[in-house]
Amino acid sequence: MPLRRFENNPLLTPEDVKPTRDDLTVLCTMNPAAVRVGDQVLLLVRVGEAARQEAEHVCYLYFDAEASELRTGRLRRDDPDLTRPDGRGWFHRGKMLLTSLSHLRIARSGDGKHFTCDDKPAIFPTTPYEAFGCEDARITPLDGRYWITYTAVSDRGVAVALASTSDFVTFARHGLIFPPYNKDVCIFPRKVRGQYVCRHRPYKSEFNDACIWTAYSPDLLAWGTHEITMSPEPGTWSSDRVGAGAPPIRTSEGWLEIYHAVDADGRYALGASLSDLEHPERISTRGSVPVFLPETPYECDGVYDDVVFSNGIVTDGETLTVFYGAADRICAAAVTTIDEMIDAAKA
Amino acid sequence: MPLRRFENNPLLTPEDVKPTRDDLTVLCTMNPAAVRVGDQVLLLVRVGEAARQEAEHVCYLYFDAEASELRTGRLRRDDPDLTRPDGRGWFHRGKMLLTSLSHLRIARSGDGKHFTCDDKPAIFPTTPYEAFGCEDARITPLDGRYWITYTAVSDRGVAVALASTSDFVTFARHGLIFPPYNKDVCIFPRKVRGQYVCRHRPYKSEFNDACIWTAYSPDLLAWGTHEITMSPEPGTWSSDRVGAGAPPIRTSEGWLEIYHAVDADGRYALGASLSDLEHPERISTRGSVPVFLPETPYECDGVYDDVVFSNGIVTDGETLTVFYGAADRICAAAVTTIDEMIDAAKA
Repeated sequence: MPLRRFENNPLLTPEDVKPTRDDLTVLCTMNPAAVRVGDQVLLLVRVGEAARQEAEHVCYLYFDAEASELRTGRLRRDDPDLTRPDGRGWFHRGKMLLTSLSHLRIARSGDGKHFTCDDKPAIFPTTPYEAFGCEDARITPLDGRYWITYTAVSDRGVAVALASTSDFVTFARHGLIFPPYNKDVCIFPRKVRGQYVCRHRPYKSEFNDACIWTAYSPDLLAWGTHEITMSPEPGTWSSDRVGAGAPPIRTSEGWLEIYHAVDADGRYALGASLSDLEHPERISTRGSVPVFLPETPYECDGVYDDVVFSNGIVTDGETLTVFYGAADRICAAAVTTIDEMIDAAKA
Repeated sequence: MPLRRFENNPLLTPEDVKPTRDDLTVLCTMNPAAVRVGDQVLLLVRVGEAARQEAEHVCYLYFDAEASELRTGRLRRDDPDLTRPDGRGWFHRGKMLLTSLSHLRIARSGDGKHFTCDDKPAIFPTTPYEAFGCEDARITPLDGRYWITYTAVSDRGVAVALASTSDFVTFARHGLIFPPYNKDVCIFPRKVRGQYVCRHRPYKSEFNDACIWTAYSPDLLAWGTHEITMSPEPGTWSSDRVGAGAPPIRTSEGWLEIYHAVDADGRYALGASLSDLEHPERISTRGSVPVFLPETPYECDGVYDDVVFSNGIVTDGETLTVFYGAADRICAAAVTTIDEMIDAAKA
């Protein structure tokens, strides 16, 4: 594998992070966005907090936007209206209940290897569209600001919101840039043919697979000219779905990307691709084999097993530090080079 | 009911329309967009054509964008990989097959009551995003052109495309304005607070119901600032889903709309609503009872039973002619007034 894990992995675990309230426990510190700011590397980590479960009750969490407060609720486990169809979530009378809820928190490092997580959230739910949490950010420096896309989850759907900051202290919110069902949005670090560009990932339906799409925007808020860029490949490590990762990296050979793919067994892997510099909706080459697979205990065994998911890369000349979430539980990193990834995209 | 059916309903049936090829039959002439152009009323009708079925084969249709040709295929009915999970479509090894495929065709009338359908399509599939057809248009006159939104269906998903025309002879195509899974897009007939506005309808998921959303655009191509506008109401005639109809009508009491709703049994009905003139994402009132229900034989019995679906309204002072598709098979119309619909929205 052309990605070499940090020796001090995992970089951040739930044990390293304080919950926002004493009655909650930190379940995961995963899927970090990453950016270099001055002398520091900042991660924007998805911190998932869980309600403490009780023997006789299912305890759930939601953000009440009207009261601007995270609330807990509980239902008797023998409630006949309570069902758990697929093991991932509870439903009550057709409404989804979440036993954990994510926000985004900054972790900082002077050496790019050892990270300390802030005690307070950076981006916490604020609107009804975030009632079930804020997840899986990407950060793009562009036009003098840092633009942050993240998944906004609620009973209104799984949508994509935009925020921005100049200092990672105060954050402006710009509302939803993609309606449900969409996630995995990353904005390119420069305009292409006069427009902003992003990747996005509408979910699969009875008609279509879960593919990576490209869209263009005049203002970062409104997105159009949607085209499919990359599809799952039947019978392979990407057969179930693909989704974009960190913002693409401009190279002489095209836009380099490390995306995630999921196979029929639900195993996540990372792949490399190159797309046309002037028409990034067109993939020029994509590697036939993964560049990274879950192999270590912290990647194979967690909240959701067998996951490596990258949404943050820091570049230092030719060197790429690929930050990733592992097993939906912890943050880790691996190092590679632009040339190795270009070769992998062509292999 | 405050909508009075035309005495000469249905206005257009499959028997009135020529197929585009001798080996196809016209299955439906439904869901017309409507607009007044000079002395004429034009409908943009969804014409669905079916492949002739054979005793031993399922015959299916798709548009081959590379060859720019509508193609037919057939599979033996005893093919073990051929399944029909829900009666609406066939699947072969997980891929959907369509036995009919729609395009959009103009029907013209001098008196607004008697319509003659063109022999040639106005908007026929041209891209891979339209491989399964073009459906359910809405027409908005705006900035000196007619803007046409329609559902683009393919194995890439159910998305929304934009076209425009100045003369209903030549049509410019503007690509996809909404990625899957979305439909029921209508553009407002004027800007609001400096931006274009539309309604759209992301599909339901395990997280969310099928609601009407509002979005804003600087240029009609890119859309953002998405907000939920109207949700299904549990246990009522709108419990399964709601979707916008014809472009909203500006009145002194707000934006008047006639939307469709579907109940738990799959029965379609029309409802009236008013929204804020300056903030049309906010519904000010919505009627508690439908303004129109399937009652006649041509509404209750067709390709899909018990459907009234309106996506075209022509105004003449206070009078509204509400064109609609019935039972997914024919075009019909009913007449009402702005005051009656405002009263219905408040009832």
